[in-house]
Amino acid sequence: MRNQGGSEEDCTAVPSDTEKLRRVLNARSIAVVGASDDLRKPGGRVVNALLHNSFPGKVYPVNPGRETIQGLECHPSLAAIAEPVDLVILSVPADDVPNQLRMGCDCGVGGFIVFASGFSEIGPEGVARQAEISKIVQDAGIPMIGPNCLGIMNGNHKMLASSTVVMGGRKLPGGNYGFISQSGALGTYWLDMSMKAGLGVSSWISTGNEADVDLAACLDYLVEDDETEVIGLYIEGVRDGAAFRAAARKAFERRKPVLVLKSGSSRQGATAAASHTGALAGEDEAYDAVFRQYNICRSDSLTDMANKAEILLTQPRSAGQRVVVISVSGGAGVLMTDAAVAEGLDVPDFSPETKARLVEILPGFASPQNPIDLTAQIVMHKTMLREVLQIISDGSGFDGVLLFMGGLSQIAEELADALVSELPRDMPCALTWQAAPEETVQHVRDRGVPVYGEIGDAARALAAQFRMGAGWDRPVPPEAPTIQLGGRATGPFAVEHLSKDLLCDATSLQRPVGVFATDADQLKKVGASLTAPLVVKLQSPEMLHKSGSGGIALGLESVEAAAEAARKMIESATERGISVDGVLVEEMVPFDHEFIVGLRCDPVFGPMLVLGRGGVTVELEPDVTRAFLPLTAEQIEDLIRSLRAAPLLEGFRGAKPCDIAGLARTVKELCDLYLSDETLSEIEINPLVADRNGRFVALDALVARSLEDSGGGTP
Amino acid sequence: MRNQGGSEEDCTAVPSDTEKLRRVLNARSIAVVGASDDLRKPGGRVVNALLHNSFPGKVYPVNPGRETIQGLECHPSLAAIAEPVDLVILSVPADDVPNQLRMGCDCGVGGFIVFASGFSEIGPEGVARQAEISKIVQDAGIPMIGPNCLGIMNGNHKMLASSTVVMGGRKLPGGNYGFISQSGALGTYWLDMSMKAGLGVSSWISTGNEADVDLAACLDYLVEDDETEVIGLYIEGVRDGAAFRAAARKAFERRKPVLVLKSGSSRQGATAAASHTGALAGEDEAYDAVFRQYNICRSDSLTDMANKAEILLTQPRSAGQRVVVISVSGGAGVLMTDAAVAEGLDVPDFSPETKARLVEILPGFASPQNPIDLTAQIVMHKTMLREVLQIISDGSGFDGVLLFMGGLSQIAEELADALVSELPRDMPCALTWQAAPEETVQHVRDRGVPVYGEIGDAARALAAQFRMGAGWDRPVPPEAPTIQLGGRATGPFAVEHLSKDLLCDATSLQRPVGVFATDADQLKKVGASLTAPLVVKLQSPEMLHKSGSGGIALGLESVEAAAEAARKMIESATERGISVDGVLVEEMVPFDHEFIVGLRCDPVFGPMLVLGRGGVTVELEPDVTRAFLPLTAEQIEDLIRSLRAAPLLEGFRGAKPCDIAGLARTVKELCDLYLSDETLSEIEINPLVADRNGRFVALDALVARSLEDSGGGTP
Repeated sequence: MRNQGGSEEDCTAVPSDTEKLRRVLNARSIAVVGASDDLRKPGGRVVNALLHNSFPGKVYPVNPGRETIQGLECHPSLAAIAEPVDLVILSVPADDVPNQLRMGCDCGVGGFIVFASGFSEIGPEGVARQAEISKIVQDAGIPMIGPNCLGIMNGNHKMLASSTVVMGGRKLPGGNYGFISQSGALGTYWLDMSMKAGLGVSSWISTGNEADVDLAACLDYLVEDDETEVIGLYIEGVRDGAAFRAAARKAFERRKPVLVLKSGSSRQGATAAASHTGALAGEDEAYDAVFRQYNICRSDSLTDMANKAEILLTQPRSAGQRVVVISVSGGAGVLMTDAAVAEGLDVPDFSPETKARLVEILPGFASPQNPIDLTAQIVMHKTMLREVLQIISDGSGFDGVLLFMGGLSQIAEELADALVSELPRDMPCALTWQAAPEETVQHVRDRGVPVYGEIGDAARALAAQFRMGAGWDRPVPPEAPTIQLGGRATGPFAVEHLSKDLLCDATSLQRPVGVFATDADQLKKVGASLTAPLVVKLQSPEMLHKSGSGGIALGLESVEAAAEAARKMIESATERGISVDGVLVEEMVPFDHEFIVGLRCDPVFGPMLVLGRGGVTVELEPDVTRAFLPLTAEQIEDLIRSLRAAPLLEGFRGAKPCDIAGLARTVKELCDLYLSDETLSEIEINPLVADRNGRFVALDALVARSLEDSGGGTP
Repeated sequence: MRNQGGSEEDCTAVPSDTEKLRRVLNARSIAVVGASDDLRKPGGRVVNALLHNSFPGKVYPVNPGRETIQGLECHPSLAAIAEPVDLVILSVPADDVPNQLRMGCDCGVGGFIVFASGFSEIGPEGVARQAEISKIVQDAGIPMIGPNCLGIMNGNHKMLASSTVVMGGRKLPGGNYGFISQSGALGTYWLDMSMKAGLGVSSWISTGNEADVDLAACLDYLVEDDETEVIGLYIEGVRDGAAFRAAARKAFERRKPVLVLKSGSSRQGATAAASHTGALAGEDEAYDAVFRQYNICRSDSLTDMANKAEILLTQPRSAGQRVVVISVSGGAGVLMTDAAVAEGLDVPDFSPETKARLVEILPGFASPQNPIDLTAQIVMHKTMLREVLQIISDGSGFDGVLLFMGGLSQIAEELADALVSELPRDMPCALTWQAAPEETVQHVRDRGVPVYGEIGDAARALAAQFRMGAGWDRPVPPEAPTIQLGGRATGPFAVEHLSKDLLCDATSLQRPVGVFATDADQLKKVGASLTAPLVVKLQSPEMLHKSGSGGIALGLESVEAAAEAARKMIESATERGISVDGVLVEEMVPFDHEFIVGLRCDPVFGPMLVLGRGGVTVELEPDVTRAFLPLTAEQIEDLIRSLRAAPLLEGFRGAKPCDIAGLARTVKELCDLYLSDETLSEIEINPLVADRNGRFVALDALVARSLEDSGGGTP
């Protein structure tokens, strides 16, 4: 599969990769090479799974030594099957995989699944074997899922082409939730959890070693798949960042929610993941940036993902934050309010009109406030919930509803019916029902109301629904500059004064008034017109970070003092064997706000801006954000406003406001410079300050060029 | 119940409140006034619940109109019962409660439960009725639980003295987990959840309106109850802060874990809670401070509480943080490592010796790193888990074990047996088992291994176990100064210069060099010796906070300039009708660190220190902690070191270190001053700075006195 995300033009000629995957995921004929009667073997389990789930297409067991398998006619080889099947499942040892793939390619099959392990995950020998099988299928243009995977499923087509034992005799319910897993085991836990949560499955793909079809290709397929409304991903490491961004962009365009669980958020976890998968894991923060840019919602567990999927699959989309909380217990209503506020939701009071209407319905001792306490009177006054919901639906200015029910099995059916018939259709709702009988939960879920066992889960799900809604209100991210993706090998950094020359010549970024001098004597001449206080900084390619190394002297009150400091500094460095270009002497710049701005090339996702507040205080609790290029000035403004310190920049409590739009324009120029000059591998400006006149000044800066002369961005 | 936490001395004379509660919670004879055959009525349900749970004591239904109830002999009145019963349950209307209480008191019963609502929660009429019943039982010295409550339970004594329907025919399992709930509904959800988690219950108390027995009294009882090993609380508002602190201190002394779910953490929630309960909710931050001081673990949901209770009830206590992660799936192991790190745990690498031993056991392609990946080979090599656990137990320097199992129902029993026999006995373990059959979970739980459905839950539970263990390593908090508890009515604040006079005379706190002057002319004389730069601050009882109101002028370069500023300031204030005492003129103090220090009297828990970092940056993300007095200097040091900015105070990245011990000593003097002078109601020093010479200087300060002349702390 080289034809990633095939363009419109290609479609008329050869099928796109996504079209090829569509044939595989909707296979009507499946051959199982290595089929068996023995359910302890994968080749036995997968045939059994297809039959047990009443797969409506044809199943061709292939096993040279057998007449029939599990009641089906058995074939001696792939070549012996009369038709070119849509899907071949190889349940044979790693050694035999290349031959079987070649035979399948000759037969013109639609695609392959390879269960066998023994490829890149076992070391050099396996890596070579994996390269061999990749070449076979890629030369033939036939997609292969795996090796070392658990297969695929399509709930709506009753196709369970997997060797997993997790189903334990259960049939896979059809539905609109699709999942792609870079771990077979996690994929099976997802299946178990989704089924327990009553969620039906469109497609399920275990990608294994991704020797051909990778996560990005599968994502593109699910984005285009009309039967999939919500997509879940389990990611250990993205192989093709450009393709992933392209598929994620398509999901954004179509407003199709993507939920992700990514492992390796901790340093220890990332180390373990790298060793486990052999994949280039990349910086977790870079993933976070990509997820944010493409409105992908990161979950911290499969449970959390199922909770969010349930509301996304059933409730109308909305970008609000004003919720009404309705509870049958005062205490639970308060806890639900606490949980909503903790998730950034607003639980505002009712208008006098709404209050006047509520007071006629609620029990005498319950005040008509938000959260609404229906009290245990709900048992006597069964229509109360229905009446309250009607008032809320009736243009009361809310964006969503959080409900709490507890116990009440004796009136569960009436309550469920009231919920189903009276919940507002134009705003999302989430229900917590504690101490509920299982039938009650099922009854409500069957009617499309998301129901949770814990208060916080409902609040978190509703908040996620709102946040995703708000995310899609942003413009679609621009297409990634594919030519620029991939790592740029970084050469040495240029010293500060040369770095500043480069940056300040090419952009409107300012630098302090200053001079470069090779020694103290020269400094006295060229620096005569400088206004104290001055700063002297050693310029040495061997001492790029000068603080704490004796390479900087601050607050010098005259050029003479600066020259003396320069003399000592050069002398000391020379004594230590550090080569010295000279010194940079600059007027000190009083400033109001200090930032760090960096540009570098993430090995997975490409050119990335790192933007944050500067200063020692912030090092303790970094206030930094990342985003991938290209970025518009408006997007950079949004990034700046997303910093925790944004209120300070906007003049919080007498702080001097910062010209955020101006800063964004300056940063945009730096981004454009980085994108346009492929020989630049890294830019680091720390700090970039807003001076007292509102100018943006680089107090320190370093630039590195790529090791290659040109075209550093193309592999 | 007036005899809170009765002293040793009292015990010999009359039973303490806790002894009285013990009789009630372990009743061997129970009368139910208002008993019924109708299970729709509370008086029917409670008799049924007692019988259904095989209560081994005597049950006396009381109902003047009936011969028998639910097969038991019925009595016309309490007086007609031959013995003074241990417990009387009143299931009668609110109107009839006073008479029944009087009759019970005359009979010398052990205690009462009052189910009826219609008391303080309905307004003034109910408040009066509640005062009446409080007086009846308190005069008689007989404890009453309720009114407006759901009763009590004792799982070990098969006593289910409650009208709840949540049990739905289930019997209450005995155990060591006790719960006190200020909401009947939340109490029932707790019951349902605890039973589903397989946790047995010692005592369960729904406190209702707390007209007599309150949460603190129940907590004291459970702390003393040998059958209760872990205590859960649901709190809406503590009525008697001193009694609560005393009981919490006793729990700390005995290292008995207390878990709490408290509602009203958000402003909106707290408002709703106040209206719901009618109780004085108090600041949520004050509760957090009390919980922290007494090592009470705050949960954010009943689920979280059950998760933590499970590990606390089954696993050895430990204060460490080094964990080994063992998983049957590489991906899940990484996720578990991420979750552990997110909870502040450490997942360190193995020693070379441990690695050498592990490499002999693990599958060839799994490297012996932490997290350990047993891989799917566990199915073939069933003894692997046992062997790995033996190596880990064997002095490998870890503090705890996190395990992940998934699916594997086919070998669940072997794995469970390996866990049970080989898990280290001297360190806590927590297990996540996803996609597990229910029997498997039960099998493991029955053997005392805590098992969770989600990875994060196991990590959170283990981290909570460690944190509580570390908390108990601190000294037992000193006894609270009971005489000082309760609110101090606050009079007006004294102006800055008088406030500083008071504080700096009584403690070693410094103030800037400065003078007070009534007008500009006087200032020129008395301020002649001051060294610029100077600051001028208006001294007016009507303008205590001077920033942003034109009441402060900074950076004045001479006494003349200061006098001119003072003249304008006084003139402007006078024009605006603001009364003026004069101006305070001080030398400006360069400083390294800035703090806020406040002392005030929380209406629930008494004298409280508020301590944090100062400065405008911090207002955005407050870095403040609170603690209740008395505090030792060491405890204040710990508070300072608990600030997020602590590394800056310790010299992070070249920041000038702060003399934390010296600051703690100064703050201790302020705390002692506040405790010793009951006429002080509030002290606010903002900022208190560490100047360049390491002195602690109050740049601004305000002190308020109590409205009463003396003894302001006693009600």
